[in-house]
Amino acid sequence: MTREKASIITLILVLGSMLHSPGSSAGPDSDILRFDLMPMPAKITPAEGKHRVTDGFYVAGDANPTARAFKAASRFMFRLSGRTGFFFQQDFLKSQAASGRESLVYNYEKAGKLEPFEDESYRLTIEPERIALTAKTDIGILRGLETLLQLMAADDQGYYFPCLEVWDSPRFTWRGLLIDAGRHFMPVDMVKRTLDGMAAVKLNVLHWHLTEDQGFRVECKTYPKLHLLGSDGFYYTQDEIKDVISFAGERGIRVVPEFDIPGHSTSWFAAFPEYASGPGPYAIERKFGIFAPTFNPAEEKTYRFFNGFLKEMAGLFPDPFMHIGGDEVEGSEWKANPAIQQFMRKNGIPDNHALQAYFNQRILKILTKYGKKMVGWDEVFQPGLPTNIVIQSWRGQEALVESARKGYQGLLSNGYYIDLCQPAWEHYLNDPIPKTSPLSEEEKKFILGGEATMWAELVTPETVDSRIWPRTAAIAERFWSPQSIDDIEDMYRRMNITSLRLEELGLKHLSYQAMLLRRMAGSDAVAPLKVLADVVEPLKRYARHEQAIYTSLSPFTRFVDACPPESMTARDFTAKVDRFLQTKDQALARDLDAMFIRWRDNHRLLLPIIHGSPILKEIQPLSEALTLAADTGIKALNLVIIGQSSDQAWADEIVRALAEAKKPKAHAELAILPAVEKLVKASAGI
Amino acid sequence: MTREKASIITLILVLGSMLHSPGSSAGPDSDILRFDLMPMPAKITPAEGKHRVTDGFYVAGDANPTARAFKAASRFMFRLSGRTGFFFQQDFLKSQAASGRESLVYNYEKAGKLEPFEDESYRLTIEPERIALTAKTDIGILRGLETLLQLMAADDQGYYFPCLEVWDSPRFTWRGLLIDAGRHFMPVDMVKRTLDGMAAVKLNVLHWHLTEDQGFRVECKTYPKLHLLGSDGFYYTQDEIKDVISFAGERGIRVVPEFDIPGHSTSWFAAFPEYASGPGPYAIERKFGIFAPTFNPAEEKTYRFFNGFLKEMAGLFPDPFMHIGGDEVEGSEWKANPAIQQFMRKNGIPDNHALQAYFNQRILKILTKYGKKMVGWDEVFQPGLPTNIVIQSWRGQEALVESARKGYQGLLSNGYYIDLCQPAWEHYLNDPIPKTSPLSEEEKKFILGGEATMWAELVTPETVDSRIWPRTAAIAERFWSPQSIDDIEDMYRRMNITSLRLEELGLKHLSYQAMLLRRMAGSDAVAPLKVLADVVEPLKRYARHEQAIYTSLSPFTRFVDACPPESMTARDFTAKVDRFLQTKDQALARDLDAMFIRWRDNHRLLLPIIHGSPILKEIQPLSEALTLAADTGIKALNLVIIGQSSDQAWADEIVRALAEAKKPKAHAELAILPAVEKLVKASAGI
Repeated sequence: MTREKASIITLILVLGSMLHSPGSSAGPDSDILRFDLMPMPAKITPAEGKHRVTDGFYVAGDANPTARAFKAASRFMFRLSGRTGFFFQQDFLKSQAASGRESLVYNYEKAGKLEPFEDESYRLTIEPERIALTAKTDIGILRGLETLLQLMAADDQGYYFPCLEVWDSPRFTWRGLLIDAGRHFMPVDMVKRTLDGMAAVKLNVLHWHLTEDQGFRVECKTYPKLHLLGSDGFYYTQDEIKDVISFAGERGIRVVPEFDIPGHSTSWFAAFPEYASGPGPYAIERKFGIFAPTFNPAEEKTYRFFNGFLKEMAGLFPDPFMHIGGDEVEGSEWKANPAIQQFMRKNGIPDNHALQAYFNQRILKILTKYGKKMVGWDEVFQPGLPTNIVIQSWRGQEALVESARKGYQGLLSNGYYIDLCQPAWEHYLNDPIPKTSPLSEEEKKFILGGEATMWAELVTPETVDSRIWPRTAAIAERFWSPQSIDDIEDMYRRMNITSLRLEELGLKHLSYQAMLLRRMAGSDAVAPLKVLADVVEPLKRYARHEQAIYTSLSPFTRFVDACPPESMTARDFTAKVDRFLQTKDQALARDLDAMFIRWRDNHRLLLPIIHGSPILKEIQPLSEALTLAADTGIKALNLVIIGQSSDQAWADEIVRALAEAKKPKAHAELAILPAVEKLVKASAGI
Repeated sequence: MTREKASIITLILVLGSMLHSPGSSAGPDSDILRFDLMPMPAKITPAEGKHRVTDGFYVAGDANPTARAFKAASRFMFRLSGRTGFFFQQDFLKSQAASGRESLVYNYEKAGKLEPFEDESYRLTIEPERIALTAKTDIGILRGLETLLQLMAADDQGYYFPCLEVWDSPRFTWRGLLIDAGRHFMPVDMVKRTLDGMAAVKLNVLHWHLTEDQGFRVECKTYPKLHLLGSDGFYYTQDEIKDVISFAGERGIRVVPEFDIPGHSTSWFAAFPEYASGPGPYAIERKFGIFAPTFNPAEEKTYRFFNGFLKEMAGLFPDPFMHIGGDEVEGSEWKANPAIQQFMRKNGIPDNHALQAYFNQRILKILTKYGKKMVGWDEVFQPGLPTNIVIQSWRGQEALVESARKGYQGLLSNGYYIDLCQPAWEHYLNDPIPKTSPLSEEEKKFILGGEATMWAELVTPETVDSRIWPRTAAIAERFWSPQSIDDIEDMYRRMNITSLRLEELGLKHLSYQAMLLRRMAGSDAVAPLKVLADVVEPLKRYARHEQAIYTSLSPFTRFVDACPPESMTARDFTAKVDRFLQTKDQALARDLDAMFIRWRDNHRLLLPIIHGSPILKEIQPLSEALTLAADTGIKALNLVIIGQSSDQAWADEIVRALAEAKKPKAHAELAILPAVEKLVKASAGI
């Protein structure tokens, strides 16, 4: 299409004079950045030579077939075979004994423990004849195998590993991802493929948010009504949970369960209204938000209930930590309950915050009895709690700094809310200990790391991968790599490569889009839909909730759901506009022109698809906005090229039109509009 | 690209005279074929009007929230919401009680049993105001809900169900799909999504092939060494099996386990060599084929072992039937074992067939004791076995006819080997009781149905969906629908629509291709790879095994694996060539010309991708063959259009070149070559 409908711009460029010499020059990156690694290791020393991969590639180590390292090496070989197409001679499932012709030798001192501060370091030496991977623990071996796999490259002669030496260990010991199975249930296979993805980018904590207003997701043998009445049938059996914990452990990943109390607990009361602070009746919540139902902290029976519950869960989940939530207690039930008010007066509890602190202290006592350390969100940080709890900050850096100064260990989640559809660079530059941190070196040690949070209001198992990946890989790098690794452009380059590689683990973040588009179109001819989807992003932060009342039963199969959080096409376009405005480079102008033409002509191709599929009707204004943006862009580009200023009135009118185009449409927005506006303003000399 | 490089043909067509009037005319299909249903119901009576779908769509029935029908109705609503994008007002997970404003009302008399000959019939009446679905059993309701969902259509005003009446019941009571988890382990999520796909096309038996030379895949509590030593760690826990059985049961699908004995059993002997007929030692087999290791039928301890094993399995699997395999006993161990030879002489057992019959009789006795009926492959049909066993025929119709005449119930699998990558129409025309069947009406009753078999030598969980779907939908129609439904063109039309719909169940048969291509290319710019993949098919039948020694550790991530078994592009192309040669229609010529140009120009685009990815090196000859075919096709098309005969020598040379092009390349073949050859021959008047 491009050539057929070439705009006048190509002609102008061909006929026009060279107004500007190309201004961009690729500066040499530092050596370390040349590798397609994510997260970047602490130290790499490149060397000469290549270790060739052939079908004789052989892995050897001291582990036995049931050991974590052995299994990881087997998975490594399957993935290496899958990427290279080699039919390896070694039966790597049967034996990894030294053969005298081994290509890769791994050695470790001991089995690593699944707890904070365990040693995950490794050293990797690639030589033309032999690759050596050594670590203190088998977990270090796992981390090193992922690095090795990421290092594989190709040239005319085939696949190879570049010779080099890597010394690596993580910056933070707690590198987590929260999966919210409460708001939308996430089946075991989603959890497992996510764990595989986490291992690939060296994350080491699955924070499993298991209870919410919308669902109680754990089989409970002490109080079976909890899962039977609180889940609509969507819960994990204890066998499944054990299976997930074992699967995670084999990948060096801890599983920290969260039971969010005393708020966010409506689903518990569908089974046990007697522990709530209000009169009920209660039913599983379908909507999203902060709701009134809250545990009754003034009744002893509440703590007897939790004693039974937490005892069972402490036995089920082996991790030393247990998360009790503690966020967003709405408070109205407490205020309206005379017995609770009386209890507060009697015990000198001045307000709801103090009442929650009292509740937390009681729960902490139970957890301690069963050998667990407590983790909670910001709000649990209240006077009176001992310092052996971990504060997870969703509110911000300040809260984390404050609690660290008081001697509490902390985790940062503020800035890592991947459900909000923000661009990767924003998360990437967010640091658990920013360079400007006011904390002393001693105080900094209290910051254990951070967690990306995949809150599940607006995702289903079908779409959730696209909200997690690839952006979580960038966050993983922030948690693992030295603070000095912060080049955004190179991060994006490596993140996009990593994204493709993550697919081999069964992750659907790339493949889901075409699948949804085909379903909407009722056809596999979805190219025009893809052109639009590639420049559209879901509304950011909480803006989607202003467009409709979403519930846990709503469809998440619409166009907006098929649009990833960050449009790489828009990012590329915006960068080109910026460079073009600086350099007036002709090649860039041609690229931009081609993009505009494609977008302008897309509407005509899209209309028949929209007309055949009522579910797509809502995207017509979005597509029209794209045409407007493209037409405008062509004109503005044209003016900038010939060095004429546009009519000021035209520019004003266009900026107004673009403001209209920027408004939410189909719960989404066109990600290219800011750059188009920049071009228009430049054309008008604004 | 197409227009830019338009060949001379377009010009010829524009300048040329109308040699022939368009010869194709679309004959009116019968009413029933207009619906996009698969399988087609027994009877449909169309009516006037449409039942509009709105966000007020409401489903009601008498079932309670834990009942099969209730859950099926909930899934129906999720899928309807997903397809339409409607935020339904009803909380269909909580209540499906009559509301006075219900759109769809389902009623059934009783819970269906999961066994052969259970009633699966239903009646569906769609009226503008109300849809009624009634059935004798809840299984009938499930079948009807699938039909209803397939009926949804759209017009300018939105989504609707067309008014009509359906009376439906299956032609065969046993409509199965075999999943081979022995040769390549298939995880639970693969089994579950397959079950969802099966339910969508009304299949009702999952034949789960659980043991093979390459793996023993079931947790066995009586003899845990079986799964611990025989599976490389890839086995189903009993909890997972129960979960799958429950999941299947909720979809009205029986689960028939197969434990393949006395051959195909190497993996058992990795744990228990003492029950084998040879001296051992034994290890899990990696290669594929027919192997010597076989149970020792002459030892009493063998039957004591099976007594313990089958007792446990009979308790685990509730289905009345159990499959004992019995195929392909290699025999050499029996011949080489003096004790077995002596046993045969002593007991008057003349040969290996008789020895296997003896073994089967002993096993049958054990199965009978534990309340199970026996199913076996052809070879179990031996004199001396009672007629209360079911024979599954992999060898052919004749064997099935013979056993039915002797009073054995039978299942047809010959002709339904979907692992062989044959086109859908071949399976579709294969009938468990062909019109030419010599059986009497009474004898025909012994034919229970058939099963598609997904043998797993050459598939992994990543690729297997593409070998099952959509072709199995065509087989499902053969098993369910009246024999008279046999229009191949309409079958393909409906199968391709069904294929898109199956994606909503998580099936990867369409999305996996782009994923594999991206991985091979290391980039998401895979369009030229897709152009090639769209006209390439894996080698048919067992020809791939002649190209390399595949094992269970081999990579199945190569180009050939990304090519579906049947190229719809090639099918479309071939049909166009045939019609063009009959009609000389200009529009067809233009279509063909455009296809040829695209194929011809593809190689240039593909080469840089191949050069960057060693795994793709093997497809260069395939791509060159496509260019040759396209160049040839353009010339031949040209000659036919202008009505000139080509040089006979040229045609001979081309036919020779095409013969070369047809040879296997990269374990695959170009599916368009026969049609190109036809065109060349026509151009030479051959």
